[in-house]
Amino acid sequence: MKDEHRKIEVCFSPVLFNDFRNPDAITVIVDILRATSAIVTAFMNGVSRIIPVETLEQAADYKRKGYMVAAERDGLVQPFADFGNSPFNFTRDRVEGKHIVYSTTNGTQAIHQASECFSVVIGAYLNFSALCEYLIRQKRDIIILCAAWKNKFNLEDTLFSGAIAERILQDKNYYTICDSTLAAIDLFQLAKTDLLGYIDKAAQRHRLRKNKLDDVIEYCHTYDLTTIIPVLKNDYLIAL
Amino acid sequence: MKDEHRKIEVCFSPVLFNDFRNPDAITVIVDILRATSAIVTAFMNGVSRIIPVETLEQAADYKRKGYMVAAERDGLVQPFADFGNSPFNFTRDRVEGKHIVYSTTNGTQAIHQASECFSVVIGAYLNFSALCEYLIRQKRDIIILCAAWKNKFNLEDTLFSGAIAERILQDKNYYTICDSTLAAIDLFQLAKTDLLGYIDKAAQRHRLRKNKLDDVIEYCHTYDLTTIIPVLKNDYLIAL
Repeated sequence: MKDEHRKIEVCFSPVLFNDFRNPDAITVIVDILRATSAIVTAFMNGVSRIIPVETLEQAADYKRKGYMVAAERDGLVQPFADFGNSPFNFTRDRVEGKHIVYSTTNGTQAIHQASECFSVVIGAYLNFSALCEYLIRQKRDIIILCAAWKNKFNLEDTLFSGAIAERILQDKNYYTICDSTLAAIDLFQLAKTDLLGYIDKAAQRHRLRKNKLDDVIEYCHTYDLTTIIPVLKNDYLIAL
Repeated sequence: MKDEHRKIEVCFSPVLFNDFRNPDAITVIVDILRATSAIVTAFMNGVSRIIPVETLEQAADYKRKGYMVAAERDGLVQPFADFGNSPFNFTRDRVEGKHIVYSTTNGTQAIHQASECFSVVIGAYLNFSALCEYLIRQKRDIIILCAAWKNKFNLEDTLFSGAIAERILQDKNYYTICDSTLAAIDLFQLAKTDLLGYIDKAAQRHRLRKNKLDDVIEYCHTYDLTTIIPVLKNDYLIAL
């Protein structure tokens, strides 16, 4: 493998991330249902800055200081928050030009874990093609970090990882020797002709349905509504 | 889901096991290339007891006390050991009636992690059908714990997990709501008509080939050479 070749890897859970750490890599955070889809939506609708925080205590602190706060756990909006993490909450009239504090069950923890990498970007179907083109232009190693569900492997993040990896590996500068990446690609290829049908069997979908939050699933699997790529700068996200 | 129904789950890495802990479950340890295939082979060939130890220091201690010791790291036999963990080392003339101490890169750590479950059994293609029938008869929750490769997801353990899960779920008393299990089954169904061809792309196969240890791969994917099921009793393995 020549030195100028760059590798792509998929990490199925934040708990596994220690064995992927690579200060030269760009890490793509993936939490399709629903954190990263919501974050991309917020930037589509003009949010100025998103401050991801790990704990509900931090989120409540920000609320007391006057920030607008989106916070949920297990798919449920927290009492102190302005709203939860459905992408449909991040409407232009609410978020345009604003700084929003954001804390979710899985997604924001993953962002913080990756913060020692060269850079951290936010991935979703909503910005898929722009993200892939951006990644290929950077000529750096790529780690796709699935936010997972309470540390457990999940299908919807895995399929999206497979979608990115399949596209990136079409570029001859990239390779993988990572079994997770191969598995993600194979699962995506199995699922891609009927992504929503396949996702229907995923555990996260059942959790969302139980909480009547499954109205976002089709939206979160829509390709290329935007070319915006949210990127971590210091401890907040801005549009690249 | 009725109470008498039992769930089956697949855990892709020992690092993820904390979120699967279940004192009522039987845990199946899977390290197809090569630890669990070697352990099953040893029992096929009449070994009396296998003492799995986590560290090389422990293994060397046992060696000084006069035990026969199998120990490797990264596929390489340790200097103090009698032999490494190729299944082909565990011949009848060497192991029959003996107690053998065993330490590997990934497999023995997984065994120790699972030791708080109701019981721990050793799975390989070599004892596949007997293992599945045994598991179904126990009417307990099942966790399939992949030994993985230095904590990272691997394809060969995942495929075998899919093979077990597919078979177990044919029994109406079992269900799964675990995305890992669904993924493992889908990958197994994709691979099963040409298991060796599929495994050819796995990272572990490349590591074994590099060390000229890939002669065992076909053997380790052979179904049903035995009906013996190794089980953890106190801190050693015996035939059930």
